[in-house]
Amino acid sequence: MYRVDLNSDLGESFGNYKIGMDDKVIPLIASANVACGYHASDPVVMDKTIKMAKEAGVRVGAHPGFPDLMGFGRRNMNVSPAEAKAYTTYQLGALGAFCKAHGVKMQHVKPHGAMYNMAAKDYKLAMAICEAIKEYDDNLIVMALSGGEMIRAAKDLGLRTALEVFADRAYEEDGSLVDRRKEGAMITDENLAIDRVVRMIKEQKVTAITGKDIPIKADSVCVHGDGEKALAFVAKIRERLAEEGIEICSLDKIV
Amino acid sequence: MYRVDLNSDLGESFGNYKIGMDDKVIPLIASANVACGYHASDPVVMDKTIKMAKEAGVRVGAHPGFPDLMGFGRRNMNVSPAEAKAYTTYQLGALGAFCKAHGVKMQHVKPHGAMYNMAAKDYKLAMAICEAIKEYDDNLIVMALSGGEMIRAAKDLGLRTALEVFADRAYEEDGSLVDRRKEGAMITDENLAIDRVVRMIKEQKVTAITGKDIPIKADSVCVHGDGEKALAFVAKIRERLAEEGIEICSLDKIV
Amino acid sequence: MYRVDLNSDLGESFGNYKIGMDDKVIPLIASANVACGYHASDPVVMDKTIKMAKEAGVRVGAHPGFPDLMGFGRRNMNVSPAEAKAYTTYQLGALGAFCKAHGVKMQHVKPHGAMYNMAAKDYKLAMAICEAIKEYDDNLIVMALSGGEMIRAAKDLGLRTALEVFADRAYEEDGSLVDRRKEGAMITDENLAIDRVVRMIKEQKVTAITGKDIPIKADSVCVHGDGEKALAFVAKIRERLAEEGIEICSLDKIV
Amino acid sequence: MYRVDLNSDLGESFGNYKIGMDDKVIPLIASANVACGYHASDPVVMDKTIKMAKEAGVRVGAHPGFPDLMGFGRRNMNVSPAEAKAYTTYQLGALGAFCKAHGVKMQHVKPHGAMYNMAAKDYKLAMAICEAIKEYDDNLIVMALSGGEMIRAAKDLGLRTALEVFADRAYEEDGSLVDRRKEGAMITDENLAIDRVVRMIKEQKVTAITGKDIPIKADSVCVHGDGEKALAFVAKIRERLAEEGIEICSLDKIV
Repeated sequence: MYRVDLNSDLGESFGNYKIGMDDKVIPLIASANVACGYHASDPVVMDKTIKMAKEAGVRVGAHPGFPDLMGFGRRNMNVSPAEAKAYTTYQLGALGAFCKAHGVKMQHVKPHGAMYNMAAKDYKLAMAICEAIKEYDDNLIVMALSGGEMIRAAKDLGLRTALEVFADRAYEEDGSLVDRRKEGAMITDENLAIDRVVRMIKEQKVTAITGKDIPIKADSVCVHGDGEKALAFVAKIRERLAEEGIEICSLDKIV
Repeated sequence: MYRVDLNSDLGESFGNYKIGMDDKVIPLIASANVACGYHASDPVVMDKTIKMAKEAGVRVGAHPGFPDLMGFGRRNMNVSPAEAKAYTTYQLGALGAFCKAHGVKMQHVKPHGAMYNMAAKDYKLAMAICEAIKEYDDNLIVMALSGGEMIRAAKDLGLRTALEVFADRAYEEDGSLVDRRKEGAMITDENLAIDRVVRMIKEQKVTAITGKDIPIKADSVCVHGDGEKALAFVAKIRERLAEEGIEICSLDKIV
Repeated sequence: MYRVDLNSDLGESFGNYKIGMDDKVIPLIASANVACGYHASDPVVMDKTIKMAKEAGVRVGAHPGFPDLMGFGRRNMNVSPAEAKAYTTYQLGALGAFCKAHGVKMQHVKPHGAMYNMAAKDYKLAMAICEAIKEYDDNLIVMALSGGEMIRAAKDLGLRTALEVFADRAYEEDGSLVDRRKEGAMITDENLAIDRVVRMIKEQKVTAITGKDIPIKADSVCVHGDGEKALAFVAKIRERLAEEGIEICSLDKIV
Repeated sequence: MYRVDLNSDLGESFGNYKIGMDDKVIPLIASANVACGYHASDPVVMDKTIKMAKEAGVRVGAHPGFPDLMGFGRRNMNVSPAEAKAYTTYQLGALGAFCKAHGVKMQHVKPHGAMYNMAAKDYKLAMAICEAIKEYDDNLIVMALSGGEMIRAAKDLGLRTALEVFADRAYEEDGSLVDRRKEGAMITDENLAIDRVVRMIKEQKVTAITGKDIPIKADSVCVHGDGEKALAFVAKIRERLAEEGIEICSLDKIV
């Protein structure tokens, strides 16, 4: 019996700015990564998002990012490990307060954008973020790039981990994601993308951009809810996973 | 036997910007109101401040403010009660995470600047802030203007309260602070200021700007650590309180 | 021969956040009020917006606001006149640099949201804003609420003015806008709204919420481009104005 | 006859936060690099700083930085060239409006912190910043690291350049600054530092950290005004330059 989690970034609206179709993607996922007011979101949005996730019975995770609202947390910033740790503590606490107000238990933490990518490659940065997570709540599951440094740091601290894979992204031979600016970085053929996901789950393998098969483990698949097309793709993944006998369930039952 | 708390705003530095002589005022006070990253402070500063307060054995409170770093949270903003509630939840959680990381228990909450002043006069706004406090931790003590609407809202929710008085500010007959822009708003004579504090504590009275005596209760006196002169004044207050047989102690023993 | 300007707020996207259907409303208006990075927008958006306005042959104005991105500049802030003046200078200069880069002449200035509303009632604040405008370029046209204090301040400084009216808003007897929270504040019947606009232009009169006719002058009508419905309404206004023999033209030909 | 400019970063206070002893360093320098509200400063501070520089007869330059107030613009950010260009245009315009209001001519542009360092090594980034400068005012002098990519880009666009050198920093053999984290990065011996400056001006040479002499040209020397010690050092430099027959004068007479 195969099991996998589906996760999506949520609650990334800000003030008068709406982004994402949160209400439509929520019924399709098992884990929601909720923005914490640094790269996106504000306290009013966070409150609404936690309420919505609770009502839908979806598990909630924190989605901390860099203090770069103008760049949506997608630009690498040369923060020190101490800064990254403090930024993580701050955002976990802020989101945690809304979880507490709504009687929701925080399940996991998945850094956002540039923080996610940098921590996948930089062990010191990853360790600083993981220390913040452990100090805040050592029951939290660290969701990060399958095979990356963040997973290694989390394991070294004794934290549970959720290995994340991407349906729509190509992989290098070392298991890192192909840079978005390189040709072939995105898997645009939906059927191929889903085939790859199924294989990652069942065979624990994926074909790297070089053509070589590499080992990969998949606890959670990242999906998006930022448009009708993305939503249709999530529905298609769900259908296929069901056909393949792969159950979508919360991380607690997987890791 | 008389008892009173001395409180001061702390941890209001931001990034490269240093403000306040936190290390020097900490030994002189019993309660530290620690900024939470909205009107002032950042995660690195919050981390250091909680650590410093813990080492000094000073009690820690949250000092949430409006999202107006440029105005240091001192400008009235027409936020809705729902916004004020969410901003408070966010900041309590953020600071609480650093308290947790350092094994410190949060003792109280005192809103900052314009949020403090507006909540002292607007019951709906005060109630929204108090709801956030109660949902976060119903053991927290609400520190607010003695006689103001914030104290009323806190009592209505069953929260403990600490009535705050000011040594250096004149009062209107209704117990509100005289607007800083009005003549006579500041009590500049240090001896007079201290006499007033002693009388507020012992006789529960103060002379309003009109010359009339009004009733006032004092659980905590606000002092400042933003310069040598302010620090000397705090030392002078402490000396006089000791002479008068007034013990400075933490809020737990007072409220 | 009657003439009127149609104006709309533009370029209010921010980073990854898109707002407004700028490309669709631009062909329908004569004057674009372009956000300047305080209540909304960022430098990349400003660059694109000025480029787009230039290509469409629409006149450009600055749309400065309060430093409150989280509240979209819609919340009253108790800024001092000196602060308001400096904020205006800053934003005019910032937008002006993009105008210069694209070879576009700035035509007018219309404050945004809370800054607009506060300046319509507070002569000192209005004067501070107008001083900033005059110092930056005394050829700029001040667009503000018809009959408000901002128009008075602009005239007192010898600046040209464009009296703005609203199709979808009710008026008090003193010519101020009815507070959005009051019943009847919004004119929801589109035909009635357009009838009112035509009457404001031709008869210089409008019926206040009390039922009494009041005098009003209209140099420019505010329209919106934030959705399909809003766009259809603008098209309808344009059609009716044409039928009534009212020419839509740039402010230069009107004031 | 030798000539050199002395420049210092100014106007980096923000809201309630004061930084730098601007009033004391101004009489000692010839060129002031004025922060523009991104990495530091706000409109009120900018207004005061331009006024102060004008009264002191010091030349004014723009000192644009990354949108990272929390990091004081000192952290590398992976902005695109298009973003860097737009950020520069925005900040030049904003500062330029205060120059205009005070009747001051902007003399030069010197990027701040991480923007300065990145542009010294990245020609594309440097070119984007220089394009913004040229579009805003092609009379502006580009002040940048002597021998760096920013100077190359400025020359390629036909802009005038001011080659900047540092008294207190060690150089690599390729003319770049030694990373602050490396041992020996800072020249702490004041007399040695001044000897090096004199040699850079008179002999156009400096000894790199490796011990090898490298060629270097100096149009302007960067000094600091952030403390009594820094100010005393500036006074000492001025004294020595006078003894050596090196005249301190504005960039106009040098480049």
